[in-house]
Amino acid sequence: MPSVNRQVLLVSRPTKSAGLDNFRLFETPLVPLQQGQIRVRNHYLSLDPYMRLRMNDCPSYAAPQPLGQVMLGATVGVVEESRAAGFVAGDKVLATFGWQEYGVGTAGDLRKVDDSCVPLSAYLGCVGMPGVAAWMGVHRILQVKANETLIVSAASGAVGSVAGQLAKHLGLCVVGITGGPQKCAYVTGELGFDACVDYKGGSMPNDLEAATPAGVEAYFDNVGGEVLDAVMARMKVFGRIAVCGRVAEYDGANIPLKNPGLILDRRLKIEGFGVMEQKGWRDALEELCRLVSSGKLKFRESIVHGLEKAPEAFLGLLKGRNFGKQLVKLT
Amino acid sequence: MPSVNRQVLLVSRPTKSAGLDNFRLFETPLVPLQQGQIRVRNHYLSLDPYMRLRMNDCPSYAAPQPLGQVMLGATVGVVEESRAAGFVAGDKVLATFGWQEYGVGTAGDLRKVDDSCVPLSAYLGCVGMPGVAAWMGVHRILQVKANETLIVSAASGAVGSVAGQLAKHLGLCVVGITGGPQKCAYVTGELGFDACVDYKGGSMPNDLEAATPAGVEAYFDNVGGEVLDAVMARMKVFGRIAVCGRVAEYDGANIPLKNPGLILDRRLKIEGFGVMEQKGWRDALEELCRLVSSGKLKFRESIVHGLEKAPEAFLGLLKGRNFGKQLVKLT
Repeated sequence: MPSVNRQVLLVSRPTKSAGLDNFRLFETPLVPLQQGQIRVRNHYLSLDPYMRLRMNDCPSYAAPQPLGQVMLGATVGVVEESRAAGFVAGDKVLATFGWQEYGVGTAGDLRKVDDSCVPLSAYLGCVGMPGVAAWMGVHRILQVKANETLIVSAASGAVGSVAGQLAKHLGLCVVGITGGPQKCAYVTGELGFDACVDYKGGSMPNDLEAATPAGVEAYFDNVGGEVLDAVMARMKVFGRIAVCGRVAEYDGANIPLKNPGLILDRRLKIEGFGVMEQKGWRDALEELCRLVSSGKLKFRESIVHGLEKAPEAFLGLLKGRNFGKQLVKLT
Repeated sequence: MPSVNRQVLLVSRPTKSAGLDNFRLFETPLVPLQQGQIRVRNHYLSLDPYMRLRMNDCPSYAAPQPLGQVMLGATVGVVEESRAAGFVAGDKVLATFGWQEYGVGTAGDLRKVDDSCVPLSAYLGCVGMPGVAAWMGVHRILQVKANETLIVSAASGAVGSVAGQLAKHLGLCVVGITGGPQKCAYVTGELGFDACVDYKGGSMPNDLEAATPAGVEAYFDNVGGEVLDAVMARMKVFGRIAVCGRVAEYDGANIPLKNPGLILDRRLKIEGFGVMEQKGWRDALEELCRLVSSGKLKFRESIVHGLEKAPEAFLGLLKGRNFGKQLVKLT
């Protein structure tokens, strides 16, 4: 057994954009377990945009991360040693051990997962929090209906890719927004969206209008900012917008909404939601697991290897440099 | 019987702010009725902020008003002559005859009203469209609950005054926003709101914070603009905002929303609504009529006399110069 656990700590808060100097790699000895404890070797660490909010010391839907502590985050791994009933070495588990190679918790901190039907890493993506966020947004917040048109931003990402595919299964016309021709090709070619607009293409509002000539009933917003402005202009009367993320703002200043008058002019409903506060996770996970294991829900992962790569990969995620769910492989 | 009907026509569209030159007083002969027609002497004309949107030639929740025609608007009056079954001279009726002294319509254009329990003019205010808008916003859109705190903007106006009083009857803490100490005193003293903030006082955000130290669950928005920005900052997690009007923008440029990130940070729900599209008018009118006739719903009117005063009174309404429901008395 190794004697050292490597961790990434948050050591300072960004004054503007987050940088590598906000993080520090740290080593700490592994200590013997106490009764009731379980030690897990983390195999994958999830990197998610909301973590950027935790780096700030101001209230948001993600509570501030204390300085000097391990960055929080979801992990999947394998039990190495257990002094708790119900867990034995070899069990595959989902936990929130954060940016470190090993985690120690009690039974209540762990959820056993079955990697015989879906890969272990998927429990951090389409069969985990991002997938459930997509499911809640589509079913509970937007309550989409067949034959409606839905726009999804960050369409090739962990949440957007699932949201769009779920809506396709429900019979909607789905238009994605993502950055670059390669991601656009993936969104239409692999994920089966009806169209995809490249927000880096220089003519996003026009391209969006061309892709949605009759307007749209619903928008699954993962980014905010100028993409939200452009989509607002495409909303039909009584349109609904689910605000799940605002990546455009996480690493910089607030971006005003250009034309809030449209909320009244078109009687729009805009709702922000946090997946952790939504009820119905069991239903969501059951459906997502079934769709993934039957090949009806596709996903793509961006994987970097080694804990020391986590900060750089995370900063890249905020800039859209990932392509699909961003993971760190720790083994 | 007089031989002439005076009307106010929209003759040009505002390039920026609306002005007196957009309107023209016009005289037209009264012609004999055809079978099925009813002639009404309009007693009161309603002036409402939404009319400003009709003056523009662009889509909004109020359709553009054609040039060269009588400005549209709700009226109450008395039947002078009837060639339709079910209506006789002397009947009190509500109609949409617009800015003119007489109106001619068929039975389907008129609704008989009873001025024995509430005054005729109230059918244009607290027992009419503005009152129903307040009722729908409070009950259907915000779905307020006892012990919540509600902010209402344009609190001394036709809609806001009703919204706040309905919420008080439901056991909420209600904070108004209006312009000037006289209106604030009316809102707290006469209407019974718990507090009122003067948006012209120079320290609106601070005053609003002082009036709502624990934040607010709900906002009934009649104005948009910087008042909306200030209220957004006071919203509690899971707060709801009903957007009923945006007077701050009607007569000028779009005003961006400063911090839309709060929608996600606080998981807010923001919904624009138009009262004409809401179901349940009968329930609303029954309750409003009962409350007014029993003295439990107070209202105040700003009345100018004579059709020729309508344009000036309307422009004043857009600047908040009215104090209560703005009417034009035509008889």
